[in-house]
Amino acid sequence: MHAITSAHNLLASLLDNHIHHGDAYHIDPRYIVWPRVLDISDRALRRVVVGLGGPKDGVPHEEEFAITPASEIMAILCLVKNLKDLKKRLARIIVAYTYENKPITASDLKAVGAMAVVLKDALKPNLVQTIEGVPAFIHGGPFANIAHGTNSLIATKMALKLADYVVTEAGFGSELGAEKFFNIVCRIGDLKPDAVVLVVSIKALKRNGDGDVKKGLPNLEKHLENISFFGLPVIVTINHFIDDTDKEIEIVEEYCKSKNIPVAVADIWSQGSEGGIELAGKLVSLIHNNPTKFHYLYGLNTSVKEKIENIAKKMYDAGRIVYTVTAEQDIKLCEKLGLDKLPICIAKTQYSLSDDPKCLGRPEGFKITVREIKFSAGAGFLVPMTGKITTMPGLPAKPTSENIDIDEKGNISGLY
Amino acid sequence: MHAITSAHNLLASLLDNHIHHGDAYHIDPRYIVWPRVLDISDRALRRVVVGLGGPKDGVPHEEEFAITPASEIMAILCLVKNLKDLKKRLARIIVAYTYENKPITASDLKAVGAMAVVLKDALKPNLVQTIEGVPAFIHGGPFANIAHGTNSLIATKMALKLADYVVTEAGFGSELGAEKFFNIVCRIGDLKPDAVVLVVSIKALKRNGDGDVKKGLPNLEKHLENISFFGLPVIVTINHFIDDTDKEIEIVEEYCKSKNIPVAVADIWSQGSEGGIELAGKLVSLIHNNPTKFHYLYGLNTSVKEKIENIAKKMYDAGRIVYTVTAEQDIKLCEKLGLDKLPICIAKTQYSLSDDPKCLGRPEGFKITVREIKFSAGAGFLVPMTGKITTMPGLPAKPTSENIDIDEKGNISGLY
Amino acid sequence: MHAITSAHNLLASLLDNHIHHGDAYHIDPRYIVWPRVLDISDRALRRVVVGLGGPKDGVPHEEEFAITPASEIMAILCLVKNLKDLKKRLARIIVAYTYENKPITASDLKAVGAMAVVLKDALKPNLVQTIEGVPAFIHGGPFANIAHGTNSLIATKMALKLADYVVTEAGFGSELGAEKFFNIVCRIGDLKPDAVVLVVSIKALKRNGDGDVKKGLPNLEKHLENISFFGLPVIVTINHFIDDTDKEIEIVEEYCKSKNIPVAVADIWSQGSEGGIELAGKLVSLIHNNPTKFHYLYGLNTSVKEKIENIAKKMYDAGRIVYTVTAEQDIKLCEKLGLDKLPICIAKTQYSLSDDPKCLGRPEGFKITVREIKFSAGAGFLVPMTGKITTMPGLPAKPTSENIDIDEKGNISGLY
Amino acid sequence: MHAITSAHNLLASLLDNHIHHGDAYHIDPRYIVWPRVLDISDRALRRVVVGLGGPKDGVPHEEEFAITPASEIMAILCLVKNLKDLKKRLARIIVAYTYENKPITASDLKAVGAMAVVLKDALKPNLVQTIEGVPAFIHGGPFANIAHGTNSLIATKMALKLADYVVTEAGFGSELGAEKFFNIVCRIGDLKPDAVVLVVSIKALKRNGDGDVKKGLPNLEKHLENISFFGLPVIVTINHFIDDTDKEIEIVEEYCKSKNIPVAVADIWSQGSEGGIELAGKLVSLIHNNPTKFHYLYGLNTSVKEKIENIAKKMYDAGRIVYTVTAEQDIKLCEKLGLDKLPICIAKTQYSLSDDPKCLGRPEGFKITVREIKFSAGAGFLVPMTGKITTMPGLPAKPTSENIDIDEKGNISGLY
Repeated sequence: MHAITSAHNLLASLLDNHIHHGDAYHIDPRYIVWPRVLDISDRALRRVVVGLGGPKDGVPHEEEFAITPASEIMAILCLVKNLKDLKKRLARIIVAYTYENKPITASDLKAVGAMAVVLKDALKPNLVQTIEGVPAFIHGGPFANIAHGTNSLIATKMALKLADYVVTEAGFGSELGAEKFFNIVCRIGDLKPDAVVLVVSIKALKRNGDGDVKKGLPNLEKHLENISFFGLPVIVTINHFIDDTDKEIEIVEEYCKSKNIPVAVADIWSQGSEGGIELAGKLVSLIHNNPTKFHYLYGLNTSVKEKIENIAKKMYDAGRIVYTVTAEQDIKLCEKLGLDKLPICIAKTQYSLSDDPKCLGRPEGFKITVREIKFSAGAGFLVPMTGKITTMPGLPAKPTSENIDIDEKGNISGLY
Repeated sequence: MHAITSAHNLLASLLDNHIHHGDAYHIDPRYIVWPRVLDISDRALRRVVVGLGGPKDGVPHEEEFAITPASEIMAILCLVKNLKDLKKRLARIIVAYTYENKPITASDLKAVGAMAVVLKDALKPNLVQTIEGVPAFIHGGPFANIAHGTNSLIATKMALKLADYVVTEAGFGSELGAEKFFNIVCRIGDLKPDAVVLVVSIKALKRNGDGDVKKGLPNLEKHLENISFFGLPVIVTINHFIDDTDKEIEIVEEYCKSKNIPVAVADIWSQGSEGGIELAGKLVSLIHNNPTKFHYLYGLNTSVKEKIENIAKKMYDAGRIVYTVTAEQDIKLCEKLGLDKLPICIAKTQYSLSDDPKCLGRPEGFKITVREIKFSAGAGFLVPMTGKITTMPGLPAKPTSENIDIDEKGNISGLY
Repeated sequence: MHAITSAHNLLASLLDNHIHHGDAYHIDPRYIVWPRVLDISDRALRRVVVGLGGPKDGVPHEEEFAITPASEIMAILCLVKNLKDLKKRLARIIVAYTYENKPITASDLKAVGAMAVVLKDALKPNLVQTIEGVPAFIHGGPFANIAHGTNSLIATKMALKLADYVVTEAGFGSELGAEKFFNIVCRIGDLKPDAVVLVVSIKALKRNGDGDVKKGLPNLEKHLENISFFGLPVIVTINHFIDDTDKEIEIVEEYCKSKNIPVAVADIWSQGSEGGIELAGKLVSLIHNNPTKFHYLYGLNTSVKEKIENIAKKMYDAGRIVYTVTAEQDIKLCEKLGLDKLPICIAKTQYSLSDDPKCLGRPEGFKITVREIKFSAGAGFLVPMTGKITTMPGLPAKPTSENIDIDEKGNISGLY
Repeated sequence: MHAITSAHNLLASLLDNHIHHGDAYHIDPRYIVWPRVLDISDRALRRVVVGLGGPKDGVPHEEEFAITPASEIMAILCLVKNLKDLKKRLARIIVAYTYENKPITASDLKAVGAMAVVLKDALKPNLVQTIEGVPAFIHGGPFANIAHGTNSLIATKMALKLADYVVTEAGFGSELGAEKFFNIVCRIGDLKPDAVVLVVSIKALKRNGDGDVKKGLPNLEKHLENISFFGLPVIVTINHFIDDTDKEIEIVEEYCKSKNIPVAVADIWSQGSEGGIELAGKLVSLIHNNPTKFHYLYGLNTSVKEKIENIAKKMYDAGRIVYTVTAEQDIKLCEKLGLDKLPICIAKTQYSLSDDPKCLGRPEGFKITVREIKFSAGAGFLVPMTGKITTMPGLPAKPTSENIDIDEKGNISGLY
């Protein structure tokens, strides 16, 4: 996190420094598109003006701060193959446009080498282990609502070399983490997944069913349908919570059976690996008995709008997609820059299949609003911003931090 | 660095969050004195306006970003005894003032526990070793021009328990790192130094002597005089560089001998510990034959101006001290808040004994301008800002980062 | 204009001055809703941050500049009966809200007397005369796209006392100036119009008909329908331009005749009053033979949304009205403040019957977007902002001012 | 006032508009030196950021608002001979600098013609009359503390053609209005004054004498000395106030007699022209019996610093002049631009002969601080800003406007 924050802000500083020292590129200060980042929720940094205080303190412009997981460098780090690839992608990052609409890149600012040095160690996967000693890589954090949502390709590839079976997490729902993993990460990394474990909780189903598990099942149905679009076998696993009743679990099991979908309760939280044996067994069986027919949802050679429509209609069940004037201009610009053949990484709330966090269950025929499209030319995708999704969260009136404390002996309280 | 950055900015976020959610304290947005920090040189962040974008994005106010070494939390971390002390000092940090001139502290914002948790691991000294296996602590980075300039008290105290002799570095010249180490750190930590190793380089003497070593000697003379004010024995060591001529070294040696000051050439850079044996021997001899008469330069019970004058006239040879209207108001406020009995930590350029970086050699009778006085109520000192010293550096027209690169195998170039 | 600018900005200065000197009301700087105004097109003033530069230069907040015709004081000046009424309305102006959501008015700031003094002379109508000596009042300029669009009530009432027939202009189309004149001005001033002169130009009909007069007639049809909603007799007059062909004029005349609407060509521009005799005669005849059945389009006791819907569906032919989240919150707030029974003064582009300037002819079933609702509590109406209408225009790449010049003798060129 | 405000802000708008539409000149937004103006005291406008809100709302930069009397256009209007001269001077106004340090003028922005049209009528002197019917011109308001302090040259020249004797007011003390009238206005207009009427009040002398008229006389002495530097005969007139005692008036009369300076009490306020007869008679006698030896204080061909020193040492009795770094840079720039041969128009507080409003009586040997130097290339002089003088005043905690009111009949109260 810190390396990414530093590399990201180094580029921002070099950009402002270039303008300060004579602005040789004739950069339009209104089209500085590289934000700064901090790994903290701080709404007051969403919109700031930097460079104030007169001629010695830089040139004024409007600026946004995002959280570090939303940094394009986080996405790049999780998608590159090696140092060479890292530098290639860093070089392509677009940071601003000139008054003549020419994009200015990290390469133009001679920032690539120094950024790569800062990221050198962060590029190496962190090997950790579970309490029972099972190895795992935890590497990278591109949240699936605002970024592509899976850990680094380097870690996954390393795991594939070391283990018989590799399980990777794709954050949030099938329409976010899974969709992006299949369409973006698998495409870039040439990965062919064998099966999907769809994790459900009784709590989430009830939330989507207005307190009733049964009423929440259409939401599960949509996620199952989404996976089928990729030609992959799927197993549902119920992540068991203490409060779950047998009755509730049965409802889900019955439903899966009626659909011929394998299902397994997993109680790893309280029983450790023991609690996951049923799931593991059924998953291995599924993999070996169901040859994968994996394919992408869309080809890259269609237009930006077609790709967005493809995702929004198939994955979200949206009725139509509305583009603001800004978004329309962004599309035109990305065509002009030859970036329109990149894959799509939609930023969307994780609380709903739609772009409205309050719209639960399985909504249909709704409207998706594309507010603007950010170009991650380095990472290699386009990021349509939908609904009110923001890349810098704010804290509530009573932040959780107020409960957190540490005593003289170093015992921490209030974290959960 | 990263833990301090995070803890610092967490407090800033909690402050803005408090105002956003109703401003129960009636805080005056013009008197938000807690900056944000980043560990990067970025002049465009010296003066920013945050909280723009309408009612959902916080309340607008002017804000400064400093570099992390200038954070009061860096100073606190380097001065505390333990977790309990850490929390006590964090609690005292003043972040803003109300319209009624009441200070608002980190404690008022219920931020202390969470900040302490973030700093928990950073509080522990880093044990490293030299190439030859000699243990050393590297812990904390409060630059001596803008902060108090020495590593953490915890590390120093730990070293004192583990070793026969402990050498600690006090950054920059005798009037900065040494003065602050003696008056602030030794006072807080109840340390009694036995001797001072004054490190000189031929290069620096020539710089202060307009290219002539001999002409630079008055600068050395002043540093020797400064140390005498604290009642400590001193040994001069010449940090040997490849380009130094024997002739030049002799000039310094002669000078020291004429003053009855022990002197030793150290060539640790090229010869390792072998190159430091002469210095070590002479130093141990100095310690055992010269009982320390260590005392502080000033008592705490004098006024703020008296303390500043004491330092500026004795340590810098200043003729007079000029206070801006802002600084005068700061002094009145600190008296009102009962903070005027704290020690003084002057922020001053390291390039000159005066507050003007271009004024070399041994200047005398000059004017020191106190622009404003920042209150580090948590760290426990007052920070008069002199001359044009800034807590956020800017990059040059051709930043060094342009030369830095890394090849496919991870070899870094251009760092030096 | 200048008096209104001065009175308006005086109130803004007193508000910021109040906050500067201790903020006794605990005003939320994000909810300062009183803009500043200038009588100049200057897009760089649309969004500014004021109060920067430290504690002595006021408290920072975001601020908008509007053009003077958009000032609520312009609206007030054009609606008041006398000095007493002026002061009553000025007193009601809402300039900000506290953190506790209490509105702060001009009265709370003790600004009313001084503002009224500044406006004292501006309250008196300007009597001018045509080249032929016909008296006319030119008094007030609340543009009908962003305000209520007619000259001052004082001037109109004075004219009614002095003349047998009074003609007043209601700016832009029937759905803007006329609608507002009938629903707002007539209601406040208890005026009962006898007839409407609907001015059409061949040029405008062609613009709405894609170059073809005949195709533009549905636009005229809509304006005629609009007037019929108010129960008023109408005469169409064709404002004759040099380029108009007889053929084109005939098309309009034929159309009116087919609808049994009287029509007259007016060529006042080239022939003076002589060119308006036909129109005058027919108009007088219309008035005396058609007793007015004038009534308002909506009652005040319906909800804000009902009133807006009434106007948008009947006057614009809108299909539905969309409210942004901001607009919804504004409606709730105006209900809470008891302002929901005020008449409505929609801000909308004058280039189309819809809120999209490019949508010509007679559009139907379109969507009207209410972006926010400004409360003119002093003037006594609510201003829903629709589409992209802005209260501060910008200049084109080559401003007309570049052509304007004056020679040594004072002859001006380039104005037209 | 309004015409100047409009012309001034038109130029500001055209500058921002130029940058918005592609910035053909590559203007450095940090070096936009043309402020905006409003004729109102509003400290929150001293430092603002304009051009916020994204690409459609202009390019962000820091901006100052001044009051209209501080506008360079006010100065120009009061110094020009005719329309042609007006346009010539408007054309020279410097509004910004490019990244290559080239000045951008009103002429470069093609703004001159339109500005001149706006100012056309304002250029004509306003002829007013006293209650007794004596004609007077009131034309222009460049306050002598921040500008050159006398009415328009056009009005003065017109008066000289119409009357036998012309009296013009030069605002504030001899070191402000008079100095500037002689050195700037007389030079530009080729005027040769015959005599000076030095107006004193008992109140002012007491204020400068700590409540004692006698102690205030050194202040008068300095003003008399100042006038003598210009070779002009002088008469002192005591502006009689109701509270003045005969004793106090005698003190002044005695003092003048002892110095051989003619003196006359004037009581025009209560007696009308009758009260001025003694003064008038003595003045005419003075003129006819004392041939003027009028000459300037300094020649134009000396350096900027010499000219400033000349004024500050002779007119203020300053001991030395201190220049900030900004001021030093300004001097270098004005030499580079060939503007260093212009006369000097120092901005200084009117409350003291020094630049510190609290320093009364006849201070000597004090320090004058030149903070920055503004170039009025159009008006044709340089404006060194001294002390804390600001071109935008603020209102007190209880503004006078709170007392101002108007009743139903139009009677105004609270103005005095």
